[in-house]
Amino acid sequence: MAVEEREPAEPGPGEVRVAVAYVGICGTDLHVFHGDMDGRVSKPATIGHEMSGTVVALGAGVEGWSVGDAVTVMPLAWDGTCPACRAGNEHICQNLDFIGIDSPGALQEFWNVPAWTLVRLPSEIPLRDAALVEPVAVAVHDVRRSELAAGDKAVVIGAGPIGVLIATVAAASGAEVVVAEIDPTRRAAAEEMGLTTLDPSSVDQVAWVAEWTDGAGADVVFEVSGSAAAVLGATSLARVRGTLVVVAIHPQPRPVDLHRVFWRELRLLGARVYQRHDFERAIELLAEGAIPAEKLITRIVPLTEVQSAFGVLEAGQAMKLLVEVSAS
Amino acid sequence: MAVEEREPAEPGPGEVRVAVAYVGICGTDLHVFHGDMDGRVSKPATIGHEMSGTVVALGAGVEGWSVGDAVTVMPLAWDGTCPACRAGNEHICQNLDFIGIDSPGALQEFWNVPAWTLVRLPSEIPLRDAALVEPVAVAVHDVRRSELAAGDKAVVIGAGPIGVLIATVAAASGAEVVVAEIDPTRRAAAEEMGLTTLDPSSVDQVAWVAEWTDGAGADVVFEVSGSAAAVLGATSLARVRGTLVVVAIHPQPRPVDLHRVFWRELRLLGARVYQRHDFERAIELLAEGAIPAEKLITRIVPLTEVQSAFGVLEAGQAMKLLVEVSAS
Repeated sequence: MAVEEREPAEPGPGEVRVAVAYVGICGTDLHVFHGDMDGRVSKPATIGHEMSGTVVALGAGVEGWSVGDAVTVMPLAWDGTCPACRAGNEHICQNLDFIGIDSPGALQEFWNVPAWTLVRLPSEIPLRDAALVEPVAVAVHDVRRSELAAGDKAVVIGAGPIGVLIATVAAASGAEVVVAEIDPTRRAAAEEMGLTTLDPSSVDQVAWVAEWTDGAGADVVFEVSGSAAAVLGATSLARVRGTLVVVAIHPQPRPVDLHRVFWRELRLLGARVYQRHDFERAIELLAEGAIPAEKLITRIVPLTEVQSAFGVLEAGQAMKLLVEVSAS
Repeated sequence: MAVEEREPAEPGPGEVRVAVAYVGICGTDLHVFHGDMDGRVSKPATIGHEMSGTVVALGAGVEGWSVGDAVTVMPLAWDGTCPACRAGNEHICQNLDFIGIDSPGALQEFWNVPAWTLVRLPSEIPLRDAALVEPVAVAVHDVRRSELAAGDKAVVIGAGPIGVLIATVAAASGAEVVVAEIDPTRRAAAEEMGLTTLDPSSVDQVAWVAEWTDGAGADVVFEVSGSAAAVLGATSLARVRGTLVVVAIHPQPRPVDLHRVFWRELRLLGARVYQRHDFERAIELLAEGAIPAEKLITRIVPLTEVQSAFGVLEAGQAMKLLVEVSAS
């Protein structure tokens, strides 16, 4: 990663120039950094897609926005013409441009984006916390897709940033939630945020969940760990006609207990990114104080130290790490 | 398998004695025969769960049935008290007694069954064809669970008896259907029943389905083959937010392309047995002539030859084989 001085480009027609305040770094950014996504990202590239900022200039034809507006960006650009878009699933357009991966992202002081990607931030949310809107929207989408209802019981496997956000959003929906996590540091962090945890390396989680649910099994299981063992075990945690949501990225095919899927008529759902209403709900949750932003954001580094930020994240030394762009 | 003479037992309170006419032999019966299900079936056992017959005697307290009524049996007995039953999923009761596997079945001249398992047959359906009601109900349940709609496009992987029934029921629901099957004999049999087929060993099925669906992918894919390779490939045939129904029994965990599940937000559903309305719909379909019973029933053997029937099935020498019990 290198920080360079560049002359900012003027916003084109329909674009808005945003002064970027904070950018969160996520697992996908780490994959890009390691070259795992070189098929999609060719160097040099400006990445970053979890952000907050302020409108500083409007391109021709932009209406409804003013200089000074606090904003975040929903970083999806769909073609509107593919079969998925025509069926109303624009967020998983078959030719999706994920802004910050497939096209330039937020790790720059001034970022020009199409005005229709902007999402308005209310004054209750500090710009620092607003960099969490995107990952919270992921969690909102995952919970929405699961059709989790108030009073349901959910297991979240994996207490990384998305795992704890899913658990928090699920709890805010009125569900009872337990987070299964092997790593003691992550478990402690989740407990610090008020979540119930279990350690699948020392607890028989099938028996634990059976007792917790009076022998029924969990209504919903979120697989957020990416681990093959977790996938294999997850089907044994769900009730008859229960739901298993595949949130983590599994680069290789994983053995799945299809006999259990058949036997209990389970439902396994893929869930990816978010839709506009997920962003709006994420903003509501942050504005209401339902998301423990203070505890999630464990490190903020200036843009000049972006290179070291990746090392910090990799070493597991931060739950959520933000890059402060505006102050650099 | 042995045929023995026994004194018929009297029907108990709430039971009905049925003179069994025909019994279909299915893949599950073959598993029982081979001892794969010895954990559930202890010898000696009378198996058989696809049947038709006539009421010949009523136990104490039975109302609504008369001697001479043509019937089939929905062979499920649930406990009514487990969490699955309490949630309305009695057909996958956590302590389900599958009659004909977990308790005595239909391969006997006179069979006593609880009156509440009986399903009335209309006069339009000959008793021979009525032995198909149970497997047709399986297919109806699978199609219902998939939420396939008229105009949808479905791929059925595997042209065994359940595969062709699913394809037939799906087509009767107004869907367009293709059956993928490697075996040329089964493919020919499916075509004989008016189904469109493809041979995945010589055709690039992903490209075929993409062209068939204008680049979208299939709305629903039914996995009825039990093959690991089919499971791995099935996710590539489904459209964004498409459905994959796991119908076949996979005794081992199977590698599943979870990245594809995530990427396209696929839905993978387990489907097992049936509910009462599935039996009723199966009877309607048979009465309307929507099921090619004549072409499906390729062999009928008398009860005295039941042993050889298993050999015939195993050798793939019959699509659907019936044992004629009444004439023996």
